[in-house]
Amino acid sequence: MNLSIIVIGDEILLGQVTDTNSGFISRKLGQLGFKTTEIRTVSDSSFAIEKAISEALKDNDLVISTGGLGPTKDDITKSVLLKIFGGELYRDSAVTENIKRIFDIKGLNLNALTLDQALVPTTCEVVQNLFGTAPVLWFSTARKAYVALPGVPYETESILSEGSLTEKIKQKFYPDKYYEHHTLTVSGISESALAEKLDDFEKKLGPNFHLAYLPDNGLIYLRLDGEGNDSEKLKRELNHLLIELEETLGSLMIFPEEGCPAEILIQNLRNQGLTLATAESCTGGNIAHLITEVAGCSDVFLGSIVSYANEVKENILGVRKETLETRGSVSEQTVREMVIGAMRVTNATAAIATSGIAGPSGGTPEKPVGTVWIAVAYQSAEMTSPEIHTTCLHIRSKNRSQIITQASRRALLTLNSLPSGHHA
Amino acid sequence: MNLSIIVIGDEILLGQVTDTNSGFISRKLGQLGFKTTEIRTVSDSSFAIEKAISEALKDNDLVISTGGLGPTKDDITKSVLLKIFGGELYRDSAVTENIKRIFDIKGLNLNALTLDQALVPTTCEVVQNLFGTAPVLWFSTARKAYVALPGVPYETESILSEGSLTEKIKQKFYPDKYYEHHTLTVSGISESALAEKLDDFEKKLGPNFHLAYLPDNGLIYLRLDGEGNDSEKLKRELNHLLIELEETLGSLMIFPEEGCPAEILIQNLRNQGLTLATAESCTGGNIAHLITEVAGCSDVFLGSIVSYANEVKENILGVRKETLETRGSVSEQTVREMVIGAMRVTNATAAIATSGIAGPSGGTPEKPVGTVWIAVAYQSAEMTSPEIHTTCLHIRSKNRSQIITQASRRALLTLNSLPSGHHA
Repeated sequence: MNLSIIVIGDEILLGQVTDTNSGFISRKLGQLGFKTTEIRTVSDSSFAIEKAISEALKDNDLVISTGGLGPTKDDITKSVLLKIFGGELYRDSAVTENIKRIFDIKGLNLNALTLDQALVPTTCEVVQNLFGTAPVLWFSTARKAYVALPGVPYETESILSEGSLTEKIKQKFYPDKYYEHHTLTVSGISESALAEKLDDFEKKLGPNFHLAYLPDNGLIYLRLDGEGNDSEKLKRELNHLLIELEETLGSLMIFPEEGCPAEILIQNLRNQGLTLATAESCTGGNIAHLITEVAGCSDVFLGSIVSYANEVKENILGVRKETLETRGSVSEQTVREMVIGAMRVTNATAAIATSGIAGPSGGTPEKPVGTVWIAVAYQSAEMTSPEIHTTCLHIRSKNRSQIITQASRRALLTLNSLPSGHHA
Repeated sequence: MNLSIIVIGDEILLGQVTDTNSGFISRKLGQLGFKTTEIRTVSDSSFAIEKAISEALKDNDLVISTGGLGPTKDDITKSVLLKIFGGELYRDSAVTENIKRIFDIKGLNLNALTLDQALVPTTCEVVQNLFGTAPVLWFSTARKAYVALPGVPYETESILSEGSLTEKIKQKFYPDKYYEHHTLTVSGISESALAEKLDDFEKKLGPNFHLAYLPDNGLIYLRLDGEGNDSEKLKRELNHLLIELEETLGSLMIFPEEGCPAEILIQNLRNQGLTLATAESCTGGNIAHLITEVAGCSDVFLGSIVSYANEVKENILGVRKETLETRGSVSEQTVREMVIGAMRVTNATAAIATSGIAGPSGGTPEKPVGTVWIAVAYQSAEMTSPEIHTTCLHIRSKNRSQIITQASRRALLTLNSLPSGHHA
């Protein structure tokens, strides 16, 4: 079953907003056996929307659009839908009730523009949107269907997670072809060296299996895709291939699924009975944020001191005034004292500290923007003092957000490689 | 000048990776007068890539693709390019040198697969990629051009920022039409009520101007677009319209450009001479992270205590054991003590504290997942004690990451609305 996703909105085309809806829709529908063949982002213009929907319906079983259903004048999707599917607009009473309910919860005043979101084509079925005022519109022909979803990510994600829309899709398209994939996380090798290592494995793959390499800044995700008519047989074959792949990879595989550095680190520390704290200057709390995005991290992660100001480094973490004055806040000695301070004030048995220059200003010839000192430390039960490891990054980006992201990532990977090297 | 962007990669189609390249390309080329008409994401298949490039070249002046140029077997773009533009592959010595240089910096071992990235079509010009091993390929006809960029965001962004590619594009397409836009940030009104308020303004707009509404969770971004043949005249007209729009909006406009809540808060606190700290439990450092993404925040932001474990709430922030035991860590009294503690230990004159249940586990009937207590406080020079404001959110999402994001955002907006209400 082929799926095409249409993202409607000038704000996406202009690069003002990053589209995350298409990825969510693709993952969700992938679980139902749909394979996304194309994602097309088009402007809020009748011509572009009509062309995209018509062309997508030619080559695909299911077409889902997101966006273009709001109450304001830049939303013209409905008139295009009347043009493509015929019919006229009527006022749906269930949608009107839903709009009133939502505005009631939010405590906002209703007006005519919003109430007109209850005007829907006679040629579609309405799937109630419990999370917002724009109804989900379902158009179907003998073999195909088109679904118009609202553009707000919270609404799109909630609608697809809630179940009634996915149930409707399942009922319409009993899948005759299945699609499965699994991803492993690899580290410590370049993409091309990995491809060489897996050459024999790839050559043996049947035509319905495919291996994809997704390098991501210090990690490589390896995704094995398979297609087949028999769901159980496909799952069995994929599992056998995965076992073979894991054996070939050996210790290069650092996580048996698709894991982000924080997730992998938390699992690794948990296995070793260690707890974690961070002391962050230039990363500004991002490492703590990445860690706390991982559900269930609270048995390992205790907390963080974001010591942006030097006074906080001194007063809370106990970094010595002399160190800050003679070595500077971006120095090996400072991150060393920060990492020890983080362990002391939180009683954690492992810690990460960062201090650097994220820019755009603050750089000097000796310490240009992108210079980041990292210290990681851990002390397992049998050790009498913590093992501390420091490293200095020279991140070549000039983009503040990228420097923060890369420094955070490298810090997590650095601590991750440390204890496992000794204990795994 | 019309631009079409093609994003190549199964990982994007499957929703494993979120595409940010197309937005970056669109923003960058927008500054050169290009209007993005379509973004199309296609799979790593010859058929899909060939179809997308051929169709895009029909309707657009410039086509830029990103991805599909890596050394591994899922990258087949080059063979498609030979099919479309003719020619054959040759080994480019400058590209070979560049690959050797990059591997040298990274300290990795070269292999044949990587060296084959220096094989390029005889029908294109090579633009050297200083940031990675895949060269930028430039194909041009009498009136059009196609550019193949690598897919790694760091490389795409660096190549477009470095200048030699954009210079080449400018030389080819001397723009005969200009495109300008400006965005304002609005708060405290629903999208539809705002549309009613701006009805007269919109009706008066000429056919070459357009107003777009981008609601984003508590804020509405208003973008005014304009097109014209005379660059200076267009800028003048847009500025006049913006002044009129700002007057119509009055105090609803909380920021004169496109501002995120952290950026707006930092500016607001700076104007009032206040400094900021955060004490974060469920938001886990994300508020500090959002604040420190704002360049130049260090004159306002001092630091944060991410008190994930109750021991950290007690030992560093001074939350009383009794409060945690009798009210629980997710309670009004706890965030009140946290916000006071954050001001005390950092000497900040304003603070934000959060404690809640981000899930997926940890919810109870009384405090379900999504319950988040927020306290905000500030004390300006003339006040003898801090003003503290608390609020409890009931976020309806069940998604951990969404709960963290929404709680962080609401916390920033809550403090932002507080002092300005008294002093602005």
